[in-house]
Amino acid sequence: MLYAGFMSAPLPPFPLSQEPVDEPELLQLSSREDEPCLRADAARNRARLLEAAGRLVAEHGAAGVTMEAVAAAARVGKGTVFRRFGDRTGLLTALLDHSEKNFQSAVITGPAPLGPGAPPLERLREFGLALLRRSADELELQLAAEPDPQRRYSNAPRRFLRGHVLILLRRIVPDADCELLALTLMAYLDPPMVHYRSKVCGMSQERVEAGWLDLVDRVTRSVSPC
Amino acid sequence: MLYAGFMSAPLPPFPLSQEPVDEPELLQLSSREDEPCLRADAARNRARLLEAAGRLVAEHGAAGVTMEAVAAAARVGKGTVFRRFGDRTGLLTALLDHSEKNFQSAVITGPAPLGPGAPPLERLREFGLALLRRSADELELQLAAEPDPQRRYSNAPRRFLRGHVLILLRRIVPDADCELLALTLMAYLDPPMVHYRSKVCGMSQERVEAGWLDLVDRVTRSVSPC
Repeated sequence: MLYAGFMSAPLPPFPLSQEPVDEPELLQLSSREDEPCLRADAARNRARLLEAAGRLVAEHGAAGVTMEAVAAAARVGKGTVFRRFGDRTGLLTALLDHSEKNFQSAVITGPAPLGPGAPPLERLREFGLALLRRSADELELQLAAEPDPQRRYSNAPRRFLRGHVLILLRRIVPDADCELLALTLMAYLDPPMVHYRSKVCGMSQERVEAGWLDLVDRVTRSVSPC
Repeated sequence: MLYAGFMSAPLPPFPLSQEPVDEPELLQLSSREDEPCLRADAARNRARLLEAAGRLVAEHGAAGVTMEAVAAAARVGKGTVFRRFGDRTGLLTALLDHSEKNFQSAVITGPAPLGPGAPPLERLREFGLALLRRSADELELQLAAEPDPQRRYSNAPRRFLRGHVLILLRRIVPDADCELLALTLMAYLDPPMVHYRSKVCGMSQERVEAGWLDLVDRVTRSVSPC
């Protein structure tokens, strides 16, 4: 499976960390080719660390993710976390990469309606809902990894997600300028916009999800089944 | 007239400049209340400097705007530019503020269909076209002033522009969740998206403008008059 990961793009900036980025280490630890070489217990260990880090992000935001906190939450020594991820930036990058990988798998090979098998309009609706729910859980982390304005639309994970929306739109509204519509739909799902709606405006998750379904209907000139 | 300027918000970051920001100086020079106190020739001088700076941005991008270049283009001494704007950050902020002010005036009191007097759908169409054309001219400057992800939707000029779109949408589609639709429509006009479409994807201005009109029609469930 093609995977458009954070490692495919220049490393995202993590303004919350002041530590230098150890690039070769990060690439080695996170590259797809390297993973099959991990011993089974090392792979389980890595997954456990990432799950612990993921829970810390959901509970305390990205600022709550330190090497020490992850070691404590996963009940391993601090040295294990440092050996595995190099530094905090490496850990956050691996965490985002892990989550992105899971999401892309769900879209490409997971169960319908997010995965294949459902009509394209239903898949598009579900895609946005799933992404909004993921952002609600990982918002701080995604904001910390937000690319520069000039690279906001170019990084590999976003290109993948937008590419998926584009494929669906071409089947739903083949006569439209689907590239432009895909950009606009993805803007609704952009982490800084998620942050603004929920944290600044105080909009509920239900309202934002209903807004997505309404936007998809309007953009595709469909009528909602509900 | 209420004016939602760059001075109403925290100063925008200008990563292209390394100079420290002289805040009180900037605020004094750019506040509305201060302007009537400028002598007529000083006001003309200031306008001439801003026009010269605006031409430099359009021709060479924000990087081409230095205190020296503006002085040369406006045929004044370098000291005049420093006295007027404090430093390069002050000049760029004043330039963006000047342009924002002109645009807001055109929306509030200018001729229809951008200004009052035309049906709301026609005004909304024209608003996006005008903003896209303005961004095409000032793109580098707007990108340099792009707020942090957490403040992207909160700064005063953007709140003004989105507020205008919201008022129009409420008259066109009163039963819709217009706050969410206004956020989405504004995303189409966001400078980093303008940059991506034109500079990265190489889309023509004509295509992007047609895409705006199409998006407005879809979002408002209208049928284009053309």
